[in-house]
Amino acid sequence: MALDLRGIWAPLVTPFTEDEDVDLEALAFNVQLYGQTPLRGYVALGTTGEFVHLSDDERGRVIETVVRAARVDDRPVIAGVGGHATRVAVEQARRAADAGAAALLVWPPFYYKAKIDSDALIDYFTAVADASPVPVILYHIPQNTGVQITPGVVAELASHPNVAGIKDSTGQPAQTIAFLREGGPGFQVFVGSTTALLAGLAAGAAGGILATANIAPYECCEVYEHARAGRWAEAAEVYRRVAAVDEVVARMGLGAMKAVLDLLGYRGGYPRRPLVRPGEEDLDRLRLLLREQRFLGC
Amino acid sequence: MALDLRGIWAPLVTPFTEDEDVDLEALAFNVQLYGQTPLRGYVALGTTGEFVHLSDDERGRVIETVVRAARVDDRPVIAGVGGHATRVAVEQARRAADAGAAALLVWPPFYYKAKIDSDALIDYFTAVADASPVPVILYHIPQNTGVQITPGVVAELASHPNVAGIKDSTGQPAQTIAFLREGGPGFQVFVGSTTALLAGLAAGAAGGILATANIAPYECCEVYEHARAGRWAEAAEVYRRVAAVDEVVARMGLGAMKAVLDLLGYRGGYPRRPLVRPGEEDLDRLRLLLREQRFLGC
Amino acid sequence: MALDLRGIWAPLVTPFTEDEDVDLEALAFNVQLYGQTPLRGYVALGTTGEFVHLSDDERGRVIETVVRAARVDDRPVIAGVGGHATRVAVEQARRAADAGAAALLVWPPFYYKAKIDSDALIDYFTAVADASPVPVILYHIPQNTGVQITPGVVAELASHPNVAGIKDSTGQPAQTIAFLREGGPGFQVFVGSTTALLAGLAAGAAGGILATANIAPYECCEVYEHARAGRWAEAAEVYRRVAAVDEVVARMGLGAMKAVLDLLGYRGGYPRRPLVRPGEEDLDRLRLLLREQRFLGC
Amino acid sequence: MALDLRGIWAPLVTPFTEDEDVDLEALAFNVQLYGQTPLRGYVALGTTGEFVHLSDDERGRVIETVVRAARVDDRPVIAGVGGHATRVAVEQARRAADAGAAALLVWPPFYYKAKIDSDALIDYFTAVADASPVPVILYHIPQNTGVQITPGVVAELASHPNVAGIKDSTGQPAQTIAFLREGGPGFQVFVGSTTALLAGLAAGAAGGILATANIAPYECCEVYEHARAGRWAEAAEVYRRVAAVDEVVARMGLGAMKAVLDLLGYRGGYPRRPLVRPGEEDLDRLRLLLREQRFLGC
Repeated sequence: MALDLRGIWAPLVTPFTEDEDVDLEALAFNVQLYGQTPLRGYVALGTTGEFVHLSDDERGRVIETVVRAARVDDRPVIAGVGGHATRVAVEQARRAADAGAAALLVWPPFYYKAKIDSDALIDYFTAVADASPVPVILYHIPQNTGVQITPGVVAELASHPNVAGIKDSTGQPAQTIAFLREGGPGFQVFVGSTTALLAGLAAGAAGGILATANIAPYECCEVYEHARAGRWAEAAEVYRRVAAVDEVVARMGLGAMKAVLDLLGYRGGYPRRPLVRPGEEDLDRLRLLLREQRFLGC
Repeated sequence: MALDLRGIWAPLVTPFTEDEDVDLEALAFNVQLYGQTPLRGYVALGTTGEFVHLSDDERGRVIETVVRAARVDDRPVIAGVGGHATRVAVEQARRAADAGAAALLVWPPFYYKAKIDSDALIDYFTAVADASPVPVILYHIPQNTGVQITPGVVAELASHPNVAGIKDSTGQPAQTIAFLREGGPGFQVFVGSTTALLAGLAAGAAGGILATANIAPYECCEVYEHARAGRWAEAAEVYRRVAAVDEVVARMGLGAMKAVLDLLGYRGGYPRRPLVRPGEEDLDRLRLLLREQRFLGC
Repeated sequence: MALDLRGIWAPLVTPFTEDEDVDLEALAFNVQLYGQTPLRGYVALGTTGEFVHLSDDERGRVIETVVRAARVDDRPVIAGVGGHATRVAVEQARRAADAGAAALLVWPPFYYKAKIDSDALIDYFTAVADASPVPVILYHIPQNTGVQITPGVVAELASHPNVAGIKDSTGQPAQTIAFLREGGPGFQVFVGSTTALLAGLAAGAAGGILATANIAPYECCEVYEHARAGRWAEAAEVYRRVAAVDEVVARMGLGAMKAVLDLLGYRGGYPRRPLVRPGEEDLDRLRLLLREQRFLGC
Repeated sequence: MALDLRGIWAPLVTPFTEDEDVDLEALAFNVQLYGQTPLRGYVALGTTGEFVHLSDDERGRVIETVVRAARVDDRPVIAGVGGHATRVAVEQARRAADAGAAALLVWPPFYYKAKIDSDALIDYFTAVADASPVPVILYHIPQNTGVQITPGVVAELASHPNVAGIKDSTGQPAQTIAFLREGGPGFQVFVGSTTALLAGLAAGAAGGILATANIAPYECCEVYEHARAGRWAEAAEVYRRVAAVDEVVARMGLGAMKAVLDLLGYRGGYPRRPLVRPGEEDLDRLRLLLREQRFLGC
């Protein structure tokens, strides 16, 4: 195995100011707070990090900021990269590795959907893995991309020495199980949806890259540690709480995630439009939920 | 709570002869074997039971056969009913209750998709629940129907005194969690996909209605009993095995399910065309899988 | 060519009374009125005819009623048939032919979607075509069925001596063009959506099976006759009017179609629930539209 | 009406060298050839132009090259712009107008699909239209974006003084008709799919922005001119030929489009990977098609 990435990773939000400028200070502040948690490390520029909302220049600064802040506590950083054209993805991969990323989370091209078949995906991911100085993780998130990375494609790519695993954000344990089977031993499957975490770990997943780890880093890690140690009752107990929060926040969207971060003492800030922060009614619902699940005191 | 339905239910396959006639004898034989298992009861005419392949007359005989065979071991039978027209569903509901069904699993209309909105679904399920002499369970299986029963619809229907719960066959724990939240206490959510069973039980599901309970009734019940007793390590252990089998068999389809039943000493028989039994290569793969997961001896 | 079916066909609505009983009298009344139009013939039990809402017995009576009423003016009747199981479709096909149908419009199985691939479709349609005493037309309506009959499947089936053609209800001229190319000479492609009629005829379609032919039989036939005679300016002029009406009525659904029939002197009656008649606001919008497009006088 | 854009526009391919560098010379060469055709103008950076494959810098150079080459024959240029974040789209819009674009074709954000509802779309397009120095055209291409711009959204945006119209690439005349109705007089609807051109023009579309205008500029313009002059028989005749070519080329993808350009004496060049040029078998099929439809001599 090229690199052992097991554990829980937080795909960091990218905080913006009210004027929608990248707030690197807030970003570094959050990483500093997370330094006290058992998080395995951070993902910069994932879906939660609004990678599609950033310029190349901003992406570079986000990676650098996270890498620098994470170094203090010696945590590795995975950087989200990709491109609709293979060569763009290759270039982004090199740049992210240069900036200090320990591994890459690679999204597939998703505009010319009718032509993004198995051959195209294998060609694309192989090119990126060939070129990347650090291990790559495939990124499966069909609800956003409309592109399916099939178990067959995974079977083909798993033998590439620089492909470390896949992040499965479908929220469907059956998908995770299929990837584990096709990937074989050493292929690290990361659950990408908190509601699917318990099932994924039971099935043999290597860990999780979980949006909810931004707001509940301790609890997400507890689920993982309990499960790993065979304390499944404890794992299930904590899972119930984080999954209940995740289901609501994921449905409300990234604006809600950032608002919850603010409520909890992190600095979530604003999303970039057309994403928006939740209204008062939704905020009240979120406060109530956080209290019910004991993430906020009364 | 109108009726306590907690536990694991097998949605029985409907065996056909090689000429594709309903094989009631084989059906009764299977139920007799299941009488030794801790299954809570049976569902006749679910998706696994090829309800869409049967005439009204055949449906009647299937329900009667299952009810009679189940009576020996005092197990309740849930009957699958529904209609594209509300009045057809109402009529089927009455008939199934007359034939001895203890509860009904009600599928939504799914042909005029553009017009099957929340109002139509609430109107439809309310009419069936009003008319049914026995409690009804909503049936959510959008991958087959193309129709979404949203959490909002569930919130509305959960207060109906004759709506006992929902079967969630999406395989997505997030969906199960949303139904549990919107349904409230007493609303029984059944996991409809074995790969989502562990997560669903951890989140508070009332049990499972699981195709895989046809081929692994003991193991499915073990997952449930272990989880219920707080023995989550044991639950996770057995879950891993049944989920691995389920993922493959579900992908191969009902013909594979029936072939596996034959391999295991039940009487699966043939599906109705255009569904077919698996070829030799797939059969070998299934045998290997069953041995790996210790459902078949070496 | 087994049977020349060229022209415009009305897929008849099935009128129901306020109590939702089949109103055969109203059905015969409509056919009698259509006897004065240049319609090529009628389709009983299409999507517009709510075939999914009817019992086998009701289906039989609907076909017989239409065949009898159509005989007066010597018009042929195409009957909609199909089944989720092949043998059900075969049986329905025989019964419909016995009842006097001149051809059949055969819908594909659409419940076990993941298993309805090209092989399954070819197997199914071949079995029905083999068994049917009269020519069959494939029915492509993926927006309702979720099943794609691909050009490749059409290429395979077009050589069957008893497959006369296909009805393409996608509303996409590109699809019609693909079917014409793959079907080859003699394979009759019917446009199934009025908004796609002009393009389909220009591309070589054999005619149309058009819901809007219920409410605008003369105008739909005019588009066809003008186009056939090369009077495309006149065809385009009438097309504009019927397409404008069709776009709105199709969006509102079958309840609206039936209400419009009542407004125009036909007997549309009620749909079966959960489909409903339009409210007053929608009715006003429909009246305005019919006046604007000169289907109702001022 | 802010700007009369009626007519046929070619959304230019962006030729790449075998090394996948932008070939501005080839691009200018094509525009020079098109200078002899009756094309209304050009779209730079549409879907056909692989806008998602280009860096911001490359996009700037493509627009400038097209604007300069088009100036010779006094043709206007529409530039494709957009962003997943509103502010990116606004910035791209300003830059494209500065570079000489006469109007903009604005694609919607399409990554956070679950949150791109009507409100988000109205907010986004309004912000771009407010900021743009030149008129904007909405870009509806749900098969690539997975985002629906509904008739209701169009009704809302049509009243904005800087929204000139919409490009409808669905290939469904019903959609075009709905946009025409909701947009009202002066709102210019452009057909974005050659197979839907005839129907769109008959329904009142302002013209077409057609990938096939790259390879058949004369014929696409002929369809438009004939239709406009009421010579529908001639329009239908030419439509049949270009639609037959379009259906095949669109199905094969952009690599095929570029290969056809090379066959016809333009300079198509290479697409960027993972898109690829067609293999020999597909090339033969394309040659045959072009001969059959008389775009290539024998």
